[in-house]
Amino acid sequence: MKFSIDQASFLEGVQIVQRAISTKSVLPPILSGIYMESKDQNIILKATDLEIGIECVLSANVSENGSTVLPARYFVELVKKLPNIELHIEEGDNGQIRIGYGKSEVMLNAFSADEFPPLQQFEEKNMLSLPKDKLIAAIRNVSIAASSDYTRPIFTGILLEITDGNLLKLVATDTHRLAYTEVRLDKEPSDFNTSIIIPSKSLIEISRIFNMDEGEVTIYLDKNKILFEADHIKITSRLIEGKFVNYKQVIPEEFTTRVRVLRKELNDSLERASLLSRDDLSKRKHNTVKLSIQEEVMDISSKSSQIGELEEMIPVFLEGKTLDIGFNARYLLDVLRVIDTEEIVIDLTTELSPGILRPVDGQDQSLFLVLPIRLS
Amino acid sequence: MKFSIDQASFLEGVQIVQRAISTKSVLPPILSGIYMESKDQNIILKATDLEIGIECVLSANVSENGSTVLPARYFVELVKKLPNIELHIEEGDNGQIRIGYGKSEVMLNAFSADEFPPLQQFEEKNMLSLPKDKLIAAIRNVSIAASSDYTRPIFTGILLEITDGNLLKLVATDTHRLAYTEVRLDKEPSDFNTSIIIPSKSLIEISRIFNMDEGEVTIYLDKNKILFEADHIKITSRLIEGKFVNYKQVIPEEFTTRVRVLRKELNDSLERASLLSRDDLSKRKHNTVKLSIQEEVMDISSKSSQIGELEEMIPVFLEGKTLDIGFNARYLLDVLRVIDTEEIVIDLTTELSPGILRPVDGQDQSLFLVLPIRLS
Repeated sequence: MKFSIDQASFLEGVQIVQRAISTKSVLPPILSGIYMESKDQNIILKATDLEIGIECVLSANVSENGSTVLPARYFVELVKKLPNIELHIEEGDNGQIRIGYGKSEVMLNAFSADEFPPLQQFEEKNMLSLPKDKLIAAIRNVSIAASSDYTRPIFTGILLEITDGNLLKLVATDTHRLAYTEVRLDKEPSDFNTSIIIPSKSLIEISRIFNMDEGEVTIYLDKNKILFEADHIKITSRLIEGKFVNYKQVIPEEFTTRVRVLRKELNDSLERASLLSRDDLSKRKHNTVKLSIQEEVMDISSKSSQIGELEEMIPVFLEGKTLDIGFNARYLLDVLRVIDTEEIVIDLTTELSPGILRPVDGQDQSLFLVLPIRLS
Repeated sequence: MKFSIDQASFLEGVQIVQRAISTKSVLPPILSGIYMESKDQNIILKATDLEIGIECVLSANVSENGSTVLPARYFVELVKKLPNIELHIEEGDNGQIRIGYGKSEVMLNAFSADEFPPLQQFEEKNMLSLPKDKLIAAIRNVSIAASSDYTRPIFTGILLEITDGNLLKLVATDTHRLAYTEVRLDKEPSDFNTSIIIPSKSLIEISRIFNMDEGEVTIYLDKNKILFEADHIKITSRLIEGKFVNYKQVIPEEFTTRVRVLRKELNDSLERASLLSRDDLSKRKHNTVKLSIQEEVMDISSKSSQIGELEEMIPVFLEGKTLDIGFNARYLLDVLRVIDTEEIVIDLTTELSPGILRPVDGQDQSLFLVLPIRLS
């Protein structure tokens, strides 16, 4: 292995694949490393924690093909601190890797590349491509509702449904709330239909790694794994086995109260109200705020025996009946954080039935369901 | 108590005094609060952890004098989240404090102001004023060498010496290194002479709270306490009792090797070298790098059985003898972080005697001593 590459693009590559490195010490030591291969005029970088795998291809001036695995932690931090000049990387003695820069050099201990697990292979048939920015926006929307409780794996995943090759749906729920987004693809209908569950952690990494620019991402599906490819980067993830909840059944179709409100105003009021309720010892888990929806105003209030009480009033536009209802402020705030329209609507029926939040005039079809908290 | 004040200036005030709030749970609960008093057209805010005390005076529209103590944690976070409009603050029922903003309001539980300890009083006689920016720069220089080991309190302090009313010296040492700065004041000589030890934590807070602008800071001294006053802010600190080391005796006056080097170049090389040595299990505490000083270059090298080895070469200008010497990279990096000149000089004698680092062409007289580490 022998190649030259400029520090900035090398750093970008190693920082991308580093995201797959796990800090879990139960994994074999080789997985704390970044696989690096020089091949023709490319450098291939890879890392995996066996759940997610990231591969990145960089252009370089290669004079000798070869491969190695370098301990990610020191390697990435070192490359970050190297001067922004051309780096000369080659295999040295005793399996060490030499990085030369200017008149200086560093020799790093390396693992043998043979020990590194191969990334999963995919066939070309089950594939679909869509605009990156739409996929990223959809992931950001729904991932807020995924659970982080790994004792119930299904709820830590995001359902990805493709219907007729031209409608993509993402759904996540932790049983207290649910987020749904659909993206209509500019494609002819086809017989490409699928329904799989992807770990939300993998999808969140994907939304962070890919650039929010105009390009496309191509998705390859297999029985128990999925591959996303864009920007010379391939990200694979295992799938979660099991049956997702029947989300259509959960979402109410009718309502008796519809309230329209400015997103930022509701957000700021809830943040203040949450300050008082989130630490209250008697209801720490609930972070309850009360919404009193009246003709032209909504009263937002919270109370803590320890800290005090708060009452805010914000203007709203009401269709239907007035209603008092309690919610976990954090669940509402999570929704308001991913909606980017000026206004939102909340649909409600009784103080015990779920609330549905939607952006007003959003481009894609998104919907957020939040279960209420009994007030007394 | 009843007053109005705009949110932005109120927030600035509460955030300043909050810095004195300790998270130590051994302190009485009242000290987790911020004392607030409305008096004539001013609001006085105070907080203390009994080691440091901060008082800040704000202008406000006061309609009723009075005082209270509010739990700092919730109070500051709430004020931070309030809209940037006029706040109406007054005493409510049950000793609660009401903060009204627009059509909304919050009622906070409060402590009784009587329980709050009075801040220390100072006499006007022992006082001295000097430019704020000079004091702040001096504190930043020397505080890097103060110890954080509270079992030996003297070394956690900074020696402040005033000679003839016109020369201020600050010194700190943790016994492995020492930092010295002197500031010559544009004043006529007087009989104001003093030598006290101030907790470095207090001085670091002072350097963070006061603005680095053109104003003056006035220092009032008492037997076991000190007061710094500027920008409508008063900061008091207890002093550390005991005898400081005789720093003049420690600083060598002669040397046989003087090397001049670009600060940034040395800094970047040491950062990379430190990456390899800082985690090496056999010498974790030492973080040793080797400097080989030759006629026109300095070789900087480090080695770790675990990670690998590094060797850098940077150009230097040498007067005197060549020398190989080992240092703790962190101690050198701490010095290079606070020196802001383009070049520095290092004075050395043997591989076992201390190195002295100085800025080249710095305005104030600063000097940093670092003990070497035996190489073999």
